[in-house]
Amino acid sequence: MQINEAKAALTALQAKLSAYNHAMSLLYYDGATTAPKGTAANRAQTMSVLSEESYRLSTSPETLELLEFLDANPDALDVHEKRIVYLALKGVREMKKIPIEEYVAYQQLVVEAEDVWHTAKEKSDFAMFAPYLEKIFDTNRRFAGYCAPEKNPYDYCLDNFEDGLTMADCDAFFSALRSRIVPLLQKIAVRPQVDDACLYGHFDEPAQHKFALALMETIGLDMDHCGLGTTEHPFTTSLGSHHDVRITTNFKVGTFASSMYSVIHEGGHALYDMNSDDSMAYTLLDGGVSMGIHESQSRFYENLLGRSRAFVELVFPRMIDAFPQLASYTPEQIWRAVNRVEPSLIRTEADEVTYCLHVMVRYELEKRVMAGELAVADLPAEWNRLYREYLGIEVPCDREGILQDSHWSGGLIGYFPSYALGSAYGAQLLAKMKETVDVDACLRSGDFSPINAWNREHIWRHGCLHKPGELLTSALGGAFDPAYYTDYLEQKFGEIYGI
Amino acid sequence: MQINEAKAALTALQAKLSAYNHAMSLLYYDGATTAPKGTAANRAQTMSVLSEESYRLSTSPETLELLEFLDANPDALDVHEKRIVYLALKGVREMKKIPIEEYVAYQQLVVEAEDVWHTAKEKSDFAMFAPYLEKIFDTNRRFAGYCAPEKNPYDYCLDNFEDGLTMADCDAFFSALRSRIVPLLQKIAVRPQVDDACLYGHFDEPAQHKFALALMETIGLDMDHCGLGTTEHPFTTSLGSHHDVRITTNFKVGTFASSMYSVIHEGGHALYDMNSDDSMAYTLLDGGVSMGIHESQSRFYENLLGRSRAFVELVFPRMIDAFPQLASYTPEQIWRAVNRVEPSLIRTEADEVTYCLHVMVRYELEKRVMAGELAVADLPAEWNRLYREYLGIEVPCDREGILQDSHWSGGLIGYFPSYALGSAYGAQLLAKMKETVDVDACLRSGDFSPINAWNREHIWRHGCLHKPGELLTSALGGAFDPAYYTDYLEQKFGEIYGI
Repeated sequence: MQINEAKAALTALQAKLSAYNHAMSLLYYDGATTAPKGTAANRAQTMSVLSEESYRLSTSPETLELLEFLDANPDALDVHEKRIVYLALKGVREMKKIPIEEYVAYQQLVVEAEDVWHTAKEKSDFAMFAPYLEKIFDTNRRFAGYCAPEKNPYDYCLDNFEDGLTMADCDAFFSALRSRIVPLLQKIAVRPQVDDACLYGHFDEPAQHKFALALMETIGLDMDHCGLGTTEHPFTTSLGSHHDVRITTNFKVGTFASSMYSVIHEGGHALYDMNSDDSMAYTLLDGGVSMGIHESQSRFYENLLGRSRAFVELVFPRMIDAFPQLASYTPEQIWRAVNRVEPSLIRTEADEVTYCLHVMVRYELEKRVMAGELAVADLPAEWNRLYREYLGIEVPCDREGILQDSHWSGGLIGYFPSYALGSAYGAQLLAKMKETVDVDACLRSGDFSPINAWNREHIWRHGCLHKPGELLTSALGGAFDPAYYTDYLEQKFGEIYGI
Repeated sequence: MQINEAKAALTALQAKLSAYNHAMSLLYYDGATTAPKGTAANRAQTMSVLSEESYRLSTSPETLELLEFLDANPDALDVHEKRIVYLALKGVREMKKIPIEEYVAYQQLVVEAEDVWHTAKEKSDFAMFAPYLEKIFDTNRRFAGYCAPEKNPYDYCLDNFEDGLTMADCDAFFSALRSRIVPLLQKIAVRPQVDDACLYGHFDEPAQHKFALALMETIGLDMDHCGLGTTEHPFTTSLGSHHDVRITTNFKVGTFASSMYSVIHEGGHALYDMNSDDSMAYTLLDGGVSMGIHESQSRFYENLLGRSRAFVELVFPRMIDAFPQLASYTPEQIWRAVNRVEPSLIRTEADEVTYCLHVMVRYELEKRVMAGELAVADLPAEWNRLYREYLGIEVPCDREGILQDSHWSGGLIGYFPSYALGSAYGAQLLAKMKETVDVDACLRSGDFSPINAWNREHIWRHGCLHKPGELLTSALGGAFDPAYYTDYLEQKFGEIYGI
């Protein structure tokens, strides 16, 4: 094989894989947004053909031979090509360690499990979901044994979502967080509560939709390449490349704040995905590098910027344009309302102070089940005990407890810590950004370009070129330190609650 | 090869092709409905990968060998399998007669031509589009020479859309139509005109959308498997199989009638596509067999049923529910208004009497260009002359003349006659249906099931199992006769115009 032929073959391979991904993401997006309700089985039929073709293509002997040839000629590769070969080889080799029939069985298991989870959640009946969850945990343990027998199985899971992350890192991180968040929460609990009545009322869907588009424009999304859909659970997806990204939201007529902040959150994901260097389109480097870095961007826009006083002041005119009934409130009242702290049952609706405690519950439980120290059957009782211990609240039923999140049903074991890590990464990135960018002035003037330029330069444009830890250290100009995040929380909520 | 293995391979091949078609149709649908406006190039990239894969799969030596093996064992095949092998072999053999580079160049040509046509139409500048149209006609003539050298090139084009159709058929058909329609139109022209003021005013989009869904339910579409989207030009598409069909419409705030009748028209296409026998899903037999039969169904629901007095009476309560301003009119007034006859410039907005005259203009022009008797450069003048001759009106500009339809820019030469044929097929099918179904009683009671059951039994469930001509003759219980259609027009419009 000639090196140039091999490079051309690598480009063609990636273009094909991107096309399959485009089709599969679009099928998923269609199913979640506009497809008629009886069409899931039809979509599943097409999905199974395309995913099998894509799997075959990724793992074929020809592909492995191509990648190994390129890997054996590192001097002929530029830095992008080296990383692509590394990522692709890692993927194929891992895939090949898992017996194909077990891989296929697991794909089917999670499809069924998601279906059962939906019903179990509706009926608030954990027992019905438990056998599936048990198999999912078992399979993850088994796959960890195939792919990384030298590692603790849960470390293998964590590493899947955040390359290099270990339990030791998480333990230290969560312990640092808890030592500052729990006392802060105790201080807040004895202070007068913030009035958030302004968030509730009747906010009709067309008005919320109009406001959502205004928010997307405000944070600097390129609306020629980013669409907004409506789904039960908000998400972000790239279609084929960073040139076409869709975010979704859910409009609740009783409050505008839920959609508002989901749009800004997903908008942060979209900004990251859409700003890979253009040369990365249709390659494995396109898009965000890890869930932790992704959440650092989404929660950056949602909370660090979106829930700041300056941002609420900035968007207030467009807010009252969409919802005239808010004209009787001040931006200050709305800012306080969207920052009300209160231990609650549902992670996705949690405030910034309690949010990481929700994540810690899930982390503790995953870790212990993966280690074989906790039985799946005992999960609900342990969940409820930890909510009492960490958040001081009683869980009334499994629907609002252990069954609330879809992640486990989809096989995502080891994903949750990224949410907390991302929040903390974001706070330190903001501190670093403020060394050279007057963020408050940007928010006051509504000019997001200096903020976005900083994120583009230090995070977005790199796509998957670097390991997440290396990307972060380079952007921060030093080591990650969760104290930036807890400092931020103490400062902000100290002011709001007069502590 | 064992026959059973070969049959399994044929099933797998069709499932793969269905999956590629699903993905490509969904990409098209997404582009036409909700995609952000800057994402076309990204979609084109994925489309080109998927269409190449699909082409390769259809025409590979293994596929040809498989089909020829099955074709050589007709006794082992059931009637469905025989037809599938026939259709697939016909496709591969035809494809193989066209040099691959010419095939690819033509695909690129029509993509460019569609783009240029859009701009040319906007600017009303035929000269800009002419070089592309010339190449499209030339290529069609050349492809006809490769694929069917024994045929007249335009017969080859007609046969592409309606298996077996010839110029001789069309000449006879159009001449029969003209001999009755032209005198009818002359009689109408001297009668007092119908007042259609009730159709115009302000009809907001949400109300039109609600009414569109009501119409879809009224005609018996299974809403669990049929969706409604919004696009510039209405169309119908199947996604993967008949289990997922989408129709689209365009809401004009100035009149409700445009969207109303496009929804019923596309709804007719959808009913046909959705009611193939379930065993045909994911095979080449799934969906409608030809454009002519398709139009016989769409124009059946749109005009024969939808523009009948009984139908307007039936939907009147839901109409005034959506558009309260119509309450001051009677269903009779609205029925007359939606049947107003008036020679006009735009085919898609034409009434039932003048519609086929629009089609005849296009047929005459295509025929003469394909025969080399008319130069592309002379098309606009000839178009305008024929509009004067057939419809008695002056064409003010190419945008409202020769550039109005997208078909030629997409390479669809020989497609237009299907519209007129379908209209005429429908009238005779209705007459046959009325021998056993009390259609008026169905419309009065709003129970479409006997009507749909008849169409399902005689047309829909057969998918592509029979040639269009055979299907039609069998449904009609005899030969096609355009007099049913002209009788229908004379009777209906004779009543409306008091002739």
